[in-house]
Amino acid sequence: MAEIEIGMGKTGRRSYRLDDVSLVPNRRTREVDLVDLRWQIDAYEFDLPVIAAAMDSVTSPATAETMHRSGGLGVLDLEGLWTRHHDAEVKLAELGDHGPDADAVFERLRELYEAPVDPDLVTQRIRELHAGGGYAAGAVSPRRVASMADILRRAELDLLLIEGTVISAEHVSTQPDPLNLKEFVRELETPVIVGGCVSYQAALHLMRTGAAGVLVGVDGGATATSRSVIGVGVGMATAIADVRAARMRHLDETGVYVHVIANGGLRTGGDVAKAIACGADAVMLGSVLAGAIDAPAPGWHWGRSSLHHELPQGQLVALETVAPLAEILEGPAHRADGMTNICGALRQAIATLGLESVKDLQKADLAVTGG
Amino acid sequence: MAEIEIGMGKTGRRSYRLDDVSLVPNRRTREVDLVDLRWQIDAYEFDLPVIAAAMDSVTSPATAETMHRSGGLGVLDLEGLWTRHHDAEVKLAELGDHGPDADAVFERLRELYEAPVDPDLVTQRIRELHAGGGYAAGAVSPRRVASMADILRRAELDLLLIEGTVISAEHVSTQPDPLNLKEFVRELETPVIVGGCVSYQAALHLMRTGAAGVLVGVDGGATATSRSVIGVGVGMATAIADVRAARMRHLDETGVYVHVIANGGLRTGGDVAKAIACGADAVMLGSVLAGAIDAPAPGWHWGRSSLHHELPQGQLVALETVAPLAEILEGPAHRADGMTNICGALRQAIATLGLESVKDLQKADLAVTGG
Amino acid sequence: MAEIEIGMGKTGRRSYRLDDVSLVPNRRTREVDLVDLRWQIDAYEFDLPVIAAAMDSVTSPATAETMHRSGGLGVLDLEGLWTRHHDAEVKLAELGDHGPDADAVFERLRELYEAPVDPDLVTQRIRELHAGGGYAAGAVSPRRVASMADILRRAELDLLLIEGTVISAEHVSTQPDPLNLKEFVRELETPVIVGGCVSYQAALHLMRTGAAGVLVGVDGGATATSRSVIGVGVGMATAIADVRAARMRHLDETGVYVHVIANGGLRTGGDVAKAIACGADAVMLGSVLAGAIDAPAPGWHWGRSSLHHELPQGQLVALETVAPLAEILEGPAHRADGMTNICGALRQAIATLGLESVKDLQKADLAVTGG
Amino acid sequence: MAEIEIGMGKTGRRSYRLDDVSLVPNRRTREVDLVDLRWQIDAYEFDLPVIAAAMDSVTSPATAETMHRSGGLGVLDLEGLWTRHHDAEVKLAELGDHGPDADAVFERLRELYEAPVDPDLVTQRIRELHAGGGYAAGAVSPRRVASMADILRRAELDLLLIEGTVISAEHVSTQPDPLNLKEFVRELETPVIVGGCVSYQAALHLMRTGAAGVLVGVDGGATATSRSVIGVGVGMATAIADVRAARMRHLDETGVYVHVIANGGLRTGGDVAKAIACGADAVMLGSVLAGAIDAPAPGWHWGRSSLHHELPQGQLVALETVAPLAEILEGPAHRADGMTNICGALRQAIATLGLESVKDLQKADLAVTGG
Repeated sequence: MAEIEIGMGKTGRRSYRLDDVSLVPNRRTREVDLVDLRWQIDAYEFDLPVIAAAMDSVTSPATAETMHRSGGLGVLDLEGLWTRHHDAEVKLAELGDHGPDADAVFERLRELYEAPVDPDLVTQRIRELHAGGGYAAGAVSPRRVASMADILRRAELDLLLIEGTVISAEHVSTQPDPLNLKEFVRELETPVIVGGCVSYQAALHLMRTGAAGVLVGVDGGATATSRSVIGVGVGMATAIADVRAARMRHLDETGVYVHVIANGGLRTGGDVAKAIACGADAVMLGSVLAGAIDAPAPGWHWGRSSLHHELPQGQLVALETVAPLAEILEGPAHRADGMTNICGALRQAIATLGLESVKDLQKADLAVTGG
Repeated sequence: MAEIEIGMGKTGRRSYRLDDVSLVPNRRTREVDLVDLRWQIDAYEFDLPVIAAAMDSVTSPATAETMHRSGGLGVLDLEGLWTRHHDAEVKLAELGDHGPDADAVFERLRELYEAPVDPDLVTQRIRELHAGGGYAAGAVSPRRVASMADILRRAELDLLLIEGTVISAEHVSTQPDPLNLKEFVRELETPVIVGGCVSYQAALHLMRTGAAGVLVGVDGGATATSRSVIGVGVGMATAIADVRAARMRHLDETGVYVHVIANGGLRTGGDVAKAIACGADAVMLGSVLAGAIDAPAPGWHWGRSSLHHELPQGQLVALETVAPLAEILEGPAHRADGMTNICGALRQAIATLGLESVKDLQKADLAVTGG
Repeated sequence: MAEIEIGMGKTGRRSYRLDDVSLVPNRRTREVDLVDLRWQIDAYEFDLPVIAAAMDSVTSPATAETMHRSGGLGVLDLEGLWTRHHDAEVKLAELGDHGPDADAVFERLRELYEAPVDPDLVTQRIRELHAGGGYAAGAVSPRRVASMADILRRAELDLLLIEGTVISAEHVSTQPDPLNLKEFVRELETPVIVGGCVSYQAALHLMRTGAAGVLVGVDGGATATSRSVIGVGVGMATAIADVRAARMRHLDETGVYVHVIANGGLRTGGDVAKAIACGADAVMLGSVLAGAIDAPAPGWHWGRSSLHHELPQGQLVALETVAPLAEILEGPAHRADGMTNICGALRQAIATLGLESVKDLQKADLAVTGG
Repeated sequence: MAEIEIGMGKTGRRSYRLDDVSLVPNRRTREVDLVDLRWQIDAYEFDLPVIAAAMDSVTSPATAETMHRSGGLGVLDLEGLWTRHHDAEVKLAELGDHGPDADAVFERLRELYEAPVDPDLVTQRIRELHAGGGYAAGAVSPRRVASMADILRRAELDLLLIEGTVISAEHVSTQPDPLNLKEFVRELETPVIVGGCVSYQAALHLMRTGAAGVLVGVDGGATATSRSVIGVGVGMATAIADVRAARMRHLDETGVYVHVIANGGLRTGGDVAKAIACGADAVMLGSVLAGAIDAPAPGWHWGRSSLHHELPQGQLVALETVAPLAEILEGPAHRADGMTNICGALRQAIATLGLESVKDLQKADLAVTGG
């Protein structure tokens, strides 16, 4: 481990961002048509290793269906506007009425999130996800997940994401009955993805809960400001590589392969390719999909933490809308900034390296540039 | 020690800023309500490890009272406007009359500082600090402190800060009777904090004067330009870690725990959390508190060195006012840039790392990022 | 090899850009008139080690003639507008009619490239190159080269450039009869330059095809965005040095000296000098020549990949036109930004280091700066 | 030596700029009045270790006199406008008539430099320098120095600067009788400063010519663009430290102490202090003095190389005028950016480190920051 002496007796680990690394082509190349992007987690197969983030500005029942038709997966935030408002689609569309006035949009969003989560709507939304033809995947925060478990099971959720900025295998709480993540995950029949984590130890403990996948990333995406607000963060390239090492150890100890999903700050095809080369099995995308013309609230992007009343760790971001969601995923690209045809770019990266699959790409050579 | 060869036969120590490091979460998390921020120096206890800087744009008798009610401490500059003008409050408020004209404000400030320090006003201001209900803490420069010692003792100052850009345990001077910091501190009954320093040796010698605390930092905050003016400076993360090492040695040699207070350039909750993780026991804040709506001179921030007639090493800075002082400390935050609810953010950082106290945070893992 | 640990068990090689290095003068200097810039590849001799890129915005039959008269070489893109349109010169000139409207120029260019490559025009353009008095050099992509081989031989092309973002000695394809680069190059009588590559292994395999030269660079010039689109890239200084190591090994194994040509992102005389100091024998220039007043489409610059319909990895760039092509190469310079009199600057660099030739410059001392 | 592998088999030395380092205070401080800035080279003593550059925008007979009265030295360019025009003062003042039109000023300067150097004017200007009361110091380029030697001796020049971007102890030339720097310097009675150099070997060879001082720096100041034009450059901190090592070796071999003068890019008091801490005995300042209200051409700054007709390696720079020259040197400072009261800042730096003299400062501790 590359320990750096910050001062006398205090060391820190050097960590690298995805921007610090790049892929190195070698002596072989491959026709792009021969590249295979398929990905499988638990019993579920996907043509693309791309997940739309569980954010109201990214995933709605409608965009989940588009993700499915493109070959990916969308995860609905089951504590978001869709389970608080019957007419969430209308209310999200109305955000556009505020024009470019971010303050007005922000205030309106805070109002909308004050409505309580309605258990019946949770059930209804899961049915809508099924109706779209794809797998029904939904996200719940650690503090709510236990109370919602029955609803989720009855509604036959296919894949559960337990996601929070504060999540761990061992959470110290004063609550009478805090979530024991390990017991909870093991008892649940639904496969679970948990996250996020950024270290080997944290990932290993999350894997030992029995999760099918773990998210890597805590200081993440376009909306997040955790790094300045609370000082927490690790370079994504380093975090993914460390979590991959945990995956290897867990596999060695248990024979179970837990999927590693990079989440936060991935914007271009190049970012996706590099995340996989660091060790990710799949990626979760936020802002780049929120920029779709057919996103739930075109032009706006926010995260759960953006609207916190006491300590927001995220921002409401105004985005340029660039292309339909399907084009962002699979092209054709009308611009050369890497933010459309992300999966075409991933295929091209793999072909340029003479490789065949996402799994191969995990072994690609990286150069450390910049700095 | 990481010595770098700058050129043949000349080495330098690699030093890191707080921006170069970040906190690394691990496998455990904790409910934020279970986090304890209490801090004690000498006989004085505080709910928050936060001190308002001894700058006229930050601490007045009124803001010291607000700091006290919030659980922190404000230190009044006993050579500033409050001890030069009976009506300092009015004169500071009048700065607002100049609108955004920095030159006019600068000239007016130079005039105001030409009035002499009035010993009776020193006594009166210390009484006002007592009247506010908190501890009376005041700052004096090394060159004046000896002559003011009697006044301070008679006025029953609780905590004395001796602060200067040039301070050391061994000061070479032509003055007939220069301050012997060691004798002075040992004879004084009032507990003393001295600073600033940035190296192990300098800190160790300051600790051996008998000081209860030392400030870390010389090239500091928003107003300071020492780095370009005289070339002096060390990355704050490295400086704090080195001074912590001095604290450990001093504790080992004497059994006395001297408090390390990071001072200069801390702007966000993340900065505070990282400074503590590097080894600080508490932090001193300047510009972020000068941005309070109820600051002594809302919209303006300056330091003692900004107004020097021969060699200013600081600037008058125009600030946006963001929130009342109490909100900057304890929230709720209405923005996500980390500059409000600083103590809430610190609690959240400690909780995210699964820790319990400021003391625990000093042992947190750091990543070295960027660069 | 300087391997850096990105994360646990995943390392990357540290790579440097030309901007990260600089030339170090030493104890000897030389009169600039005594510097010799001559370069020879296969049977062809040049006064200058400078090649104009095979891009329609850089090389036309006319600018190839100017390159020849100045002592360098221009390579015509044999799949570009010149082999698609009889009146390419007129059509390129008409781009100026769109004024500064990049979208209109982009759309017009896409239209123009939809015309098929006309084999007769290929022959005619090669004749025009011969008629200009210099060597006839043309570029073809890997996927077309086999089908065009007969035409090129009959037209007596002097030098063939096989260039593609995806090129390697071993290309895996579903095509019934993919290009076997090694067989192809060995059977061809025309000397071949292939590229680009960025690693020792890739370069060594390209050299073993029998190529007379290899291009270094994949993430290149002013138009290229491969780095963000597909994440591929290596710092140019490192890439050139590695390919030079391959040249040495190949020379040792076979007795054949394969020329190394740096391509992509070289903008100034300093860039050229540093590329050579890293190990290049010659350089290929794009944007800096596209800025000539007498460039094929003054004010605009684009690459093959800029116009791709599915996954563009480049941009159409608007350029300020600065000087006639001959002045950009040999001065006099009217500006001090290093973008004119590039060969004069190269001579001055060699003289400042007390050296005599391009070959000497390859052994110059470098400093690693910045970062 | 910290050799970095740029690529396989090609290494480079890591070099640091002054911006990469800073001074580290320690346990002792000193009263600023006790600091001594005196400097002596050959038989000449100075109160300040500061030389005004031999540039027409910096040193005139008048500003040389001001430098002398302040305690420093001004070096007149003996091939500049002052030896080409009897009424240089008027012609320089007239540059102001062009207002902010840089192109017009540039063209006018080119015209002015087309007049030949008049030997009688050389003699006259040296007399004017004497008449100003200080030492007469003048600069000549390597290619002219031999032919001007008699004039300089007869005019009793006190100190000769031989300065060129291409200078070395061994210059290879086709000229019938090129300058043998070693013979020339040894035969001359006038003490000589030569430069610039940036490496140990080059400095050692220049020292062995018998020079009293060497300039460090080739890629220098505000006007210079050598780094982009010809790619030459080394970080100043590293260059000074290396040249200091040459000074130590030369002293050990010969008993002669050759003075090291940092030249190029020094802008603030902090830069000066850091250059000395790296090993310089004195500094040469350009742009910061050209910004004086009483500079020869207030508001404009250029170097010899800025006006080269074939390959300019410098720019004409428009400057804000900030203060009279004497204030820039010794204050009082009315701004806090370090660009006025440079010598006061140097004294303050030395005092803050508890040191006494420029010679002491050479041993100060440095931190390597940033990056």
